[in-house]
Amino acid sequence: MREFSTKDSFVTNVQPQLDHSGHKITVVGVGAAGIGSAFSILTRSVSNDIALVDSAQDKLEGEALDLQHGSSFLHNARIVASTDYAVTAGSRICVLTAGARLKKGETRFDLLQRNVEIAKNIIPQLLKYSPDTILLIVSNPVDILTHIAWKISGLPKTRVIGSGTNLDSSRFRFLISQRLGIGLSSCHGWIIGEHGDSSVAVWSSVNVAGVRLQTLNPSFGTDGDDEKWSELHQKVITGAYEVNKRKGNTGWATGLNVSGICEGILKNSRNVYAVSVLVQGLHDIKEEVFLSLPAVLGENGVTDVIIQPLENSEKAKLQKSAQVLSKVMKSVKW
Amino acid sequence: MREFSTKDSFVTNVQPQLDHSGHKITVVGVGAAGIGSAFSILTRSVSNDIALVDSAQDKLEGEALDLQHGSSFLHNARIVASTDYAVTAGSRICVLTAGARLKKGETRFDLLQRNVEIAKNIIPQLLKYSPDTILLIVSNPVDILTHIAWKISGLPKTRVIGSGTNLDSSRFRFLISQRLGIGLSSCHGWIIGEHGDSSVAVWSSVNVAGVRLQTLNPSFGTDGDDEKWSELHQKVITGAYEVNKRKGNTGWATGLNVSGICEGILKNSRNVYAVSVLVQGLHDIKEEVFLSLPAVLGENGVTDVIIQPLENSEKAKLQKSAQVLSKVMKSVKW
Amino acid sequence: MREFSTKDSFVTNVQPQLDHSGHKITVVGVGAAGIGSAFSILTRSVSNDIALVDSAQDKLEGEALDLQHGSSFLHNARIVASTDYAVTAGSRICVLTAGARLKKGETRFDLLQRNVEIAKNIIPQLLKYSPDTILLIVSNPVDILTHIAWKISGLPKTRVIGSGTNLDSSRFRFLISQRLGIGLSSCHGWIIGEHGDSSVAVWSSVNVAGVRLQTLNPSFGTDGDDEKWSELHQKVITGAYEVNKRKGNTGWATGLNVSGICEGILKNSRNVYAVSVLVQGLHDIKEEVFLSLPAVLGENGVTDVIIQPLENSEKAKLQKSAQVLSKVMKSVKW
Amino acid sequence: MREFSTKDSFVTNVQPQLDHSGHKITVVGVGAAGIGSAFSILTRSVSNDIALVDSAQDKLEGEALDLQHGSSFLHNARIVASTDYAVTAGSRICVLTAGARLKKGETRFDLLQRNVEIAKNIIPQLLKYSPDTILLIVSNPVDILTHIAWKISGLPKTRVIGSGTNLDSSRFRFLISQRLGIGLSSCHGWIIGEHGDSSVAVWSSVNVAGVRLQTLNPSFGTDGDDEKWSELHQKVITGAYEVNKRKGNTGWATGLNVSGICEGILKNSRNVYAVSVLVQGLHDIKEEVFLSLPAVLGENGVTDVIIQPLENSEKAKLQKSAQVLSKVMKSVKW
Repeated sequence: MREFSTKDSFVTNVQPQLDHSGHKITVVGVGAAGIGSAFSILTRSVSNDIALVDSAQDKLEGEALDLQHGSSFLHNARIVASTDYAVTAGSRICVLTAGARLKKGETRFDLLQRNVEIAKNIIPQLLKYSPDTILLIVSNPVDILTHIAWKISGLPKTRVIGSGTNLDSSRFRFLISQRLGIGLSSCHGWIIGEHGDSSVAVWSSVNVAGVRLQTLNPSFGTDGDDEKWSELHQKVITGAYEVNKRKGNTGWATGLNVSGICEGILKNSRNVYAVSVLVQGLHDIKEEVFLSLPAVLGENGVTDVIIQPLENSEKAKLQKSAQVLSKVMKSVKW
Repeated sequence: MREFSTKDSFVTNVQPQLDHSGHKITVVGVGAAGIGSAFSILTRSVSNDIALVDSAQDKLEGEALDLQHGSSFLHNARIVASTDYAVTAGSRICVLTAGARLKKGETRFDLLQRNVEIAKNIIPQLLKYSPDTILLIVSNPVDILTHIAWKISGLPKTRVIGSGTNLDSSRFRFLISQRLGIGLSSCHGWIIGEHGDSSVAVWSSVNVAGVRLQTLNPSFGTDGDDEKWSELHQKVITGAYEVNKRKGNTGWATGLNVSGICEGILKNSRNVYAVSVLVQGLHDIKEEVFLSLPAVLGENGVTDVIIQPLENSEKAKLQKSAQVLSKVMKSVKW
Repeated sequence: MREFSTKDSFVTNVQPQLDHSGHKITVVGVGAAGIGSAFSILTRSVSNDIALVDSAQDKLEGEALDLQHGSSFLHNARIVASTDYAVTAGSRICVLTAGARLKKGETRFDLLQRNVEIAKNIIPQLLKYSPDTILLIVSNPVDILTHIAWKISGLPKTRVIGSGTNLDSSRFRFLISQRLGIGLSSCHGWIIGEHGDSSVAVWSSVNVAGVRLQTLNPSFGTDGDDEKWSELHQKVITGAYEVNKRKGNTGWATGLNVSGICEGILKNSRNVYAVSVLVQGLHDIKEEVFLSLPAVLGENGVTDVIIQPLENSEKAKLQKSAQVLSKVMKSVKW
Repeated sequence: MREFSTKDSFVTNVQPQLDHSGHKITVVGVGAAGIGSAFSILTRSVSNDIALVDSAQDKLEGEALDLQHGSSFLHNARIVASTDYAVTAGSRICVLTAGARLKKGETRFDLLQRNVEIAKNIIPQLLKYSPDTILLIVSNPVDILTHIAWKISGLPKTRVIGSGTNLDSSRFRFLISQRLGIGLSSCHGWIIGEHGDSSVAVWSSVNVAGVRLQTLNPSFGTDGDDEKWSELHQKVITGAYEVNKRKGNTGWATGLNVSGICEGILKNSRNVYAVSVLVQGLHDIKEEVFLSLPAVLGENGVTDVIIQPLENSEKAKLQKSAQVLSKVMKSVKW
């Protein structure tokens, strides 16, 4: 019998290895949105240090093992997974994708209340192990849940962010790009407000190489426009439904979007993203609610919010959303 | 009514846009392996020009739409999808992931025969639109199907490649890395031969920084080794089963592996991959069969095969696999 | 003596290796601009297949060897270099950075005439070995030399592009970003027209998240603006001088800019770049001249030109530049 | 006169922006090695947060400005530069490339003593602003200066690293790759020991796909080898001279190498690099000296050292270098 192990005969340890890096990201929930986020974060080199948490142990282990098996293509990614939140320790960002789905006979409000209960269980666990983390909320209804997460967490408002309408904006730009035949990165446009059917397309923001389309076509985006650009907003709103109907989830787009927001944060990019933030006092909104506005992100979370000049109808829509959300917030128990 | 459309009032066309690039990749099949491949290719920037084909139109459209919605994070990716192979025109690589699954009461051989029929339908369509393409076969049993694909296609042997044991090798390195606590990219080791239970772990190839572990531990990898390194090979073999049992597919690892092989080809990298190639005449194999050996890949496909010095038992195992596969090939109708 | 060489005893050749890839780029001139371009192209993974040409053989060999020594960090880059244009064969893009410098007592026009002679020597050689290439002209005066290159080459106007004011636009955005404290990628603005002192800052194009600064501040960019934003344009114009004065060249910014334009082309991105193109007939320009306008690039070169709505003074400045350039063109011998 | 500034009319500040990220790197010295390092770090996305320090203010400002002008192609890089070390605050890694050059009539030892003085000035300044940093020494003679840096700094030995023979190893692999016609990433081999003429080529470590070339050719690397592979080591040793002779510096290879080591650290990769570390007690070296051995790097610096089985002649060479360096160390004043 050999005296030393194979390893000991050629590896001389000098100090313990660090079990996590300065760019660790936790993803809670390994459904399509969560695992799509983790995979995008890893493949797009946003971070090579990921912790996954889910209550479904088998699925969780399977996903982690599958990622680990491919980690030779992922810059030596370190992927850990557990039902125990201890694996999340030291995370710079915690992405919350866990959420219940509508049960038969359940109202949307019942579902919300159940998702609030889930958030109440998860968030204190995350903060216990990563007190300085930034929370990125993806679960729906994202504006309400981001608000709740802020309340539960006790974190400053700068460190609780909802993925909001950033994906809606990405869909909007894709549709503009398709219609103009110009590369997506050169097509600019913003969807803000409530994530979902009540979102606001800021038509005045749509531009290519600084050419504002509204200047060229004054009825751009309105009902009176014979080119029917307003259909693009409709397609953004129905986009998620169309994908869900065909494949049961929107994991790729959601995952890419999450990886993009995380990149903006971890690189301290100061880029602008349409994310759900506390909007009280902005655009004459009186209520304490979270809604998406273009916001500047860095390693310390939200640093600035961009106030786009809005038309009255757009502003009114934002304020209406704020009132609706505020009412929901008052009725939710947390 | 305005005289010009919004687009025409600021975009002056000079020549038609190209509808595909010089790095287009087609993926046939949008199951977990296929869509995992497409997503890895896009997110790892191997190509931003992808065509997807599948007979399940709804699923196909859903997957394509989901990717398109996130394409603002994918270097302006161009993603097309259709049940009609015309969308694949001009592909540099065609990845075949389509395949039937075992039906109740069906033998493995019946399944193979069904998958051969599928390949017979697909491959001529691919070649019709991309006569100069490289075929990368991922569907199982990969060695047989790569062989069949070569026969059906009439392509030179350099341009028909099976994903083979490249993923097995990735799993092997991950396990070595975990056990030694050393970064995966610095842990080298090869699994060759038949993809599946009969694969061969080339223990003499395992090294870190050029330190061959077999030199340090002469019983390394053998049954007589009290450190039981041979368990790593067992874990490689059962790896796919373990993941499948827990999540129903091995989409991430398969997808990452495919993206890695495609990257090696499109970048004309001349790197070495464990892929399924025609091995007749190598390692004293007499039969015309496809098996995995380390092979050098470039834009024109396989340029060289690496002949590792094998122990007699390893060589015997390879030759045994060759005989078994040859027998199967003779009984398959194509 | 051993019977086989070490290589032959383990490498079995199947077919010759390709000596160039489908994404080869040639850079002519290994001064700071040329080698900065090559290095940026390699490190930013725009291409891993580069040919360098220069008449100064020693410098050329030194640069190539230096890159090769680091190529383990460059995705197996293939770097070739020679005074003989045969090494450029099969290039998708040829970047022309070679150019004479002002001699003592020489007029700017004499210098131009000398640079024309240089271009006349180089371009036919490039086309001989890469007849389907795209020419990207970087040497100054870039607008004139791009025009001359088009004439000499006989190529369609879509395949002769000058780097133009794309770098001026990059400098402009950097300055806007610094002043606003917002990430550069989210700060948009365009410099068009003649590359150099007569360039045009399109103030109406400056926006962040679709917020047009001119809307907020009607005197934005004008002399009457008490915030003095117009100084940013001055700083763009003097930027190159400031850098040249301190370090003798602008190799990094020029190199990054070239790599960005090449990326847009090779990825078939359809993104918009401020590059020098044939502008006759656009913005009421009557002369056959090359000037920078926002243009859509793809693998086949320029596909579209964007016509920004310009103020009369901006348009007049463009037209003035066109007249000046046209006059120069008439006096140059080519 | 408008009441609000343009910025204030659309940007609402929520909290101050962070003035540095968690991945900041300082480079001291903006000669070819230093600026090549900075440019490689930025373009290869190792970090987008760089501080440059040099005593030559004009050159320093020119380099920083040139990088900033191209930062739109660098993920919103934040580049700061000053002669004052305050700009380096919060750096995760400090790269030391500053160093004097041989004056006419000066002995190599005089030069060393001057470089020691330079290090003594710089290092306390770096530690003042980044007490938890890792020092990466690039200036030559690298083994001595790394040793001195460790002494001066008072840091644990795990956090003072010399770039050592990592670049020599990269050159070695390039030459193997060229000779075999196989992609560089698949060609493995190590140069260890003293950086420079006395370095040791570990011939037993040379392998491709786990095929050890020494096994195939027992005289591999020895003087008796009729294939003359040993010439590759000679070419590694003369490589830097050849490049210096032709272009005056080895900035690209040095810069790429530095960026590679920094990437290994910042990504907590646990990969193996040939870097200069304290080797006392390893390979029976008795002296307290720094020499290059394969070492595992992570965010906390060196975690493990790999002890390759060496031939007696190789070990003797290492020990000889240790004695020579130890003697030099004793005569240097620090």
